[in-house]
Amino acid sequence: MSRRCWFNEDLAKNPANCVPLSPLSFLKRASTVYANRVSLVYNTRQYSWRETYSRCSRLASALTTLGVQRGDTVATMLPNVPAIYEAHFGIPMVGAVINAINIRLDAEAIAFILSHSHTRVLLVDPEFHGVVKRAFDRLEGPPPIVIDVLDSDVGEQSRWGNHEYEQLLGEADNNVGWHLPADEWDAIALGYTSGTTGNPKGVVSHHRGAYLNAVSNVLSWNLPENVTYLWTLPMFHCNGWCFPWTMAVIGGTNICLRRIDPDHVVELIQRHQVTHYCGAPIVHSMIAECLENLLGKIGHKVSGLIAGAAPSAALLEKMEYTGIELTHVYGLTETYGPATVCLKQPVWSELPRDRRAELNGRQGVTYPLEEEVAVLDPVTLQPVPANGSVIGEVMFKGNIVMKGYLRNPKATAEAFSGGWFRSGDLAVVQPDGYIKLRDRSKDVIISGGENISSMEVEEVILRHPDIELAAVVAAPDAKWGEVPVAFVQLQADSQLSEAELIRYCRDNIAHFKAPKRVYFEEIPVTSTGKIQKYSLRQRLSTTR
Amino acid sequence: MSRRCWFNEDLAKNPANCVPLSPLSFLKRASTVYANRVSLVYNTRQYSWRETYSRCSRLASALTTLGVQRGDTVATMLPNVPAIYEAHFGIPMVGAVINAINIRLDAEAIAFILSHSHTRVLLVDPEFHGVVKRAFDRLEGPPPIVIDVLDSDVGEQSRWGNHEYEQLLGEADNNVGWHLPADEWDAIALGYTSGTTGNPKGVVSHHRGAYLNAVSNVLSWNLPENVTYLWTLPMFHCNGWCFPWTMAVIGGTNICLRRIDPDHVVELIQRHQVTHYCGAPIVHSMIAECLENLLGKIGHKVSGLIAGAAPSAALLEKMEYTGIELTHVYGLTETYGPATVCLKQPVWSELPRDRRAELNGRQGVTYPLEEEVAVLDPVTLQPVPANGSVIGEVMFKGNIVMKGYLRNPKATAEAFSGGWFRSGDLAVVQPDGYIKLRDRSKDVIISGGENISSMEVEEVILRHPDIELAAVVAAPDAKWGEVPVAFVQLQADSQLSEAELIRYCRDNIAHFKAPKRVYFEEIPVTSTGKIQKYSLRQRLSTTR
Repeated sequence: MSRRCWFNEDLAKNPANCVPLSPLSFLKRASTVYANRVSLVYNTRQYSWRETYSRCSRLASALTTLGVQRGDTVATMLPNVPAIYEAHFGIPMVGAVINAINIRLDAEAIAFILSHSHTRVLLVDPEFHGVVKRAFDRLEGPPPIVIDVLDSDVGEQSRWGNHEYEQLLGEADNNVGWHLPADEWDAIALGYTSGTTGNPKGVVSHHRGAYLNAVSNVLSWNLPENVTYLWTLPMFHCNGWCFPWTMAVIGGTNICLRRIDPDHVVELIQRHQVTHYCGAPIVHSMIAECLENLLGKIGHKVSGLIAGAAPSAALLEKMEYTGIELTHVYGLTETYGPATVCLKQPVWSELPRDRRAELNGRQGVTYPLEEEVAVLDPVTLQPVPANGSVIGEVMFKGNIVMKGYLRNPKATAEAFSGGWFRSGDLAVVQPDGYIKLRDRSKDVIISGGENISSMEVEEVILRHPDIELAAVVAAPDAKWGEVPVAFVQLQADSQLSEAELIRYCRDNIAHFKAPKRVYFEEIPVTSTGKIQKYSLRQRLSTTR
Repeated sequence: MSRRCWFNEDLAKNPANCVPLSPLSFLKRASTVYANRVSLVYNTRQYSWRETYSRCSRLASALTTLGVQRGDTVATMLPNVPAIYEAHFGIPMVGAVINAINIRLDAEAIAFILSHSHTRVLLVDPEFHGVVKRAFDRLEGPPPIVIDVLDSDVGEQSRWGNHEYEQLLGEADNNVGWHLPADEWDAIALGYTSGTTGNPKGVVSHHRGAYLNAVSNVLSWNLPENVTYLWTLPMFHCNGWCFPWTMAVIGGTNICLRRIDPDHVVELIQRHQVTHYCGAPIVHSMIAECLENLLGKIGHKVSGLIAGAAPSAALLEKMEYTGIELTHVYGLTETYGPATVCLKQPVWSELPRDRRAELNGRQGVTYPLEEEVAVLDPVTLQPVPANGSVIGEVMFKGNIVMKGYLRNPKATAEAFSGGWFRSGDLAVVQPDGYIKLRDRSKDVIISGGENISSMEVEEVILRHPDIELAAVVAAPDAKWGEVPVAFVQLQADSQLSEAELIRYCRDNIAHFKAPKRVYFEEIPVTSTGKIQKYSLRQRLSTTR
C-alpha cells in the first residue's frame, strides 16, 4: 500500500521550472555569453555568435513568411557552407524539421526523399541544380519552394530557385521571434539512411535527444571553450553527429569548407589552428598522408573523432606520428551519431603501440548521456557473457535514440521490438566491458558451416603495416558454400603480393578464415565513408 | 490552420527511446566505465567506482528492508564522510528523497525539519546523538528509525540508533535491484533553507534538475576525467551543489573529510594531488592563508569554485599567488546551487589585476544548462537596461529550478508568480550582459531617502589591501533614518584605523554612501559561510 506522497502535492510543473530541452537554447545562450567570439569562418566570411544568432533568427522569420509551420519539413542540398550550419537552428526555430539530404544521391533517391518527407522548402546549392531538377521531374505532387544558396567564392553561379538565401535573410525581420518547441519530444531532424536494398528509411530525431547528444559530445571529448572545429564531417551525415549544436554549447569556432581536398584541409588546420575534427577513416587517412609531407609545420595539438570502421594500426601509427590524437566512436543515424566511445583508460598509455591500437580500435562503452548499450542475444534478450567470444546484437536504450522511422510503422516496430533499439550490428563484449563489433548479420561469411566474421579477418589484414584499407566479403564457392575474399588498398610504396598477404593471414588467424583470394584495387565507399560491401559482393557474383 | 503532422504519427515514446533523466544513471555507468578507478578516499578507506555502486545498491536494499518506499523522506545528520556521499545515490535508488540536514542546527530546528518532512529514517553520526536526542524529545509523532554511522577513525563512539550503517550494508542483498524514478519529475532531494525569520522552507528538487545541473558543473568548469575533488563544501549544503552526482559523470575521485581544519585541508591537497574544490569565501581564505606559509610545496594546478559572496581583491590576489584559480558562481538552494558563472573572457587576462578582480567578482552569466537568468523589474517583469545602474530582481527560468517548497503552497506560489522564480536578490546588468548582485531587498540601506547598496560599499572596502572580510549594514539614525555602518576583519598585520578606512571610502564612493562608523571585529557567518547581516543589524539596534 502506498503512503501519501507530499512531494507531488502542490508541486506541479510551471513555466519557471520546466522548459523543453532543445539545442536552440544553446544558440540563444551563445549569442550573449560568447557574443563577440568567432562562431563561423568560411573562406573570407566570418561571423560572431551574435551574428550567427541573428542570421538564424532571420532564416526562421523568412521561413515563416514562406508559410512554413510546426511539423513541416525543410530540406537542404548543401555542402558544409554557412547556410547548412544556420539551417540546423533556423529551421527548428519555427518548429519545422531539417532534412539534410546527402548531396551525392541521384535524382531518383532525392525524388523519393522529397516526396516521402513532404518537403515544403528546399535550400539548394547551384552545384546541384541539375540533379534536383531531374528529381523534381519525377515528383507527382507540387515541388517544394526552392531557395538558392549562392556562393560568391565559387564564381559565376546560375539562379533557378524562387528565392535567394542572402537576399531572404537581408529582407527578413530580425524581431519576429522564434520559439522553443511546444514539446521536447517534437521532431528536430529527419535523416534518410542509405539502405542497400529497398527505399531509404527516414530516421526522426527529437529536440530532447539532440540536446543531450550535443552535450554528450562535449563530455566525451572534454571540449573546452576555445575549440576550433573543422567541418570535415558532412553536416548532412546524421546532422554532423550533433556537432552543429555542440559548438553552440561551448561557443567554439566552426570552420566550414565546401569539399574535402586534403591540401586545403591541411592548410585550414594550419591557418585557423584547428583543434578538433571528425570523420570516417578515409578522411583521417587523407589528412595523415598530407601531413606526413609537411612534418613539423603543425605546432599545436589536434584531436580527431573517427567512426564508420575501426582505425587500422597503420593509420593510428601515422596519426600519432603526425601529432593527431584519434578517439574511436560508434553509432548510427538512429542514435544521433556517436553512442559509444572507446574511452581511453590511463593504463593503456604504458602498453606497446600495437596493443594500444587494438584496444583503441574497439567500439567501447556507453556514450556519456546515452542510457545503455548492450550486447544481447537477439531472441532471449539476455546479455552475452563478457568473454570476447560469444556474439550478440548491439542494442541501445535511452534518450538518444530516434523517435522511429517516418511513415513506416512496420520498420519502427521491428527496430524497437523487445524494448530495445536493435542496431543490426553484431558484437562481442570483452572482459573489461568494452564492446567489439563483429559484423552486420549480412556481412557474416558462412564457409563449410562455420561462421567467419569479416571484421575479424579485416583486422588481421589491417595490422599489416603495408595495408591502407581492407574489406573482406563472401565469394560463392562450389565446395564450401562461401569463402572469404579480400579487397585491399596498399600503402603507396608497397610491393606486397597476394601470396604474401594470404600467408600473413594464415600465420595470424585460423586457416579457414584466411582470404582465399586478394584483389589489390581501390575500394568503393559510400558518400559517408562506409565501405560498400554489397557492391564488392555483387562484383564477385557477376564476374564468376 | 494546422496541417497534418506526420512526425507525431506512429512515433510515440517507448522504453527504448525514452528513459527518465536521473543522476542515478551516472553511477551505473561509472560502475562499468570507471570500474577500477578510485571513487572515494576517506582517511585510510578507499573505494573503487564498482565498490561505490555496490555500497549504494546495498544501502538501497537495506532501506527497502526497513520499509522505505517511493516518496518517503530519509534524512542525514552527517559531516562529509563516505555515508553521506553514498546516501545521495542509495536513497533515491528506492525512489525516496534525501534530506541532508545542516549538522550545525539546534534541536528545535532539527525537530521542525524531521516533523515537517515526515522523515522515516535518519542516518546520524554519533557526534550528533545529543542534539538529535533533544530534537526527538520535541517530536509529537513517532521518531524516525535511526541508523548510526560509526566512524572508526574517530575512536570510541557510542551506539544509540536502531541499526549500524556498515552492519546494515554488510547484511544487505546486493542483488535486490534498484530502479530509476518512475518519472524524472519525482523528487530526489529536500533541502531546508536557513531562513532568518520564521520556519525554514523545504526546497524540493527533482531528478531531471539534478541530472542537468550535475552535467552543468562539468561543462562550466570543463572538468576532465581525472579530477580529484576535495569535499570542503558540506554535502548538506544544497546537496554539495550537485557535485556528488557530478563526480559520477566523470568518474573522478572524491576526497572526504570530517571537518575543515586548514592544515588538514592543505595536507590533503598535497597528499592526493587535489585538483578541484568548492566553498564559501571563508574556506578559500583559510586555505590561502595556510598555503602562503607553504609556498612552493604545491606543484600542481588547483581550481576552486567560490560562491556565497564575491571574492575580495585581496583574496583573489592571494589565491593567484598561491597557485589556485578561482571561478565565481552564484545560485540558491532553489536552483540546485550554482545557476550563474562568472565566465572568464579571454581578453580579461591582459587587464591589470584589480580590474580583473572586479570583473571576476560579478555573478556573471547563465549556467550552461540553466535556461535563463534575468534581471527584471519585479512589478512589470520587464528586463532592466544593461547599463550597470538600474536595479532589478534576479529571476530564473528553466529545468534547474526547484519543484517548489514542501507543504507550503503559499510560498511556492509567491516564488513562482509571473512565470519566473524570484530569487529576492537585487542586481544590475552590466553592458557586457554580466549580472552584478546588489543587495537582497532587506539589506538595502535607506539614508535620507537615498537607497544605498550595502554590497557596493562592501566592494569598495574590500578593494583596500588590508581588508579580509567586510559587511555593511544599516544602523538606525535619528537624522537620516538609517546610515551605513561597516564591520571589518583586517589582515593579520594591519594597523588600519577607523578614520583612515572612512577616508578611503569617501575617496572612492559618494560621501553619503561611506560608512559612518567602523567596527574591527570578527564577523559572524552562517554554517554555510554567509555573513549574518541580520545579527549585525540586531546588535546595532540593541547596543544603541
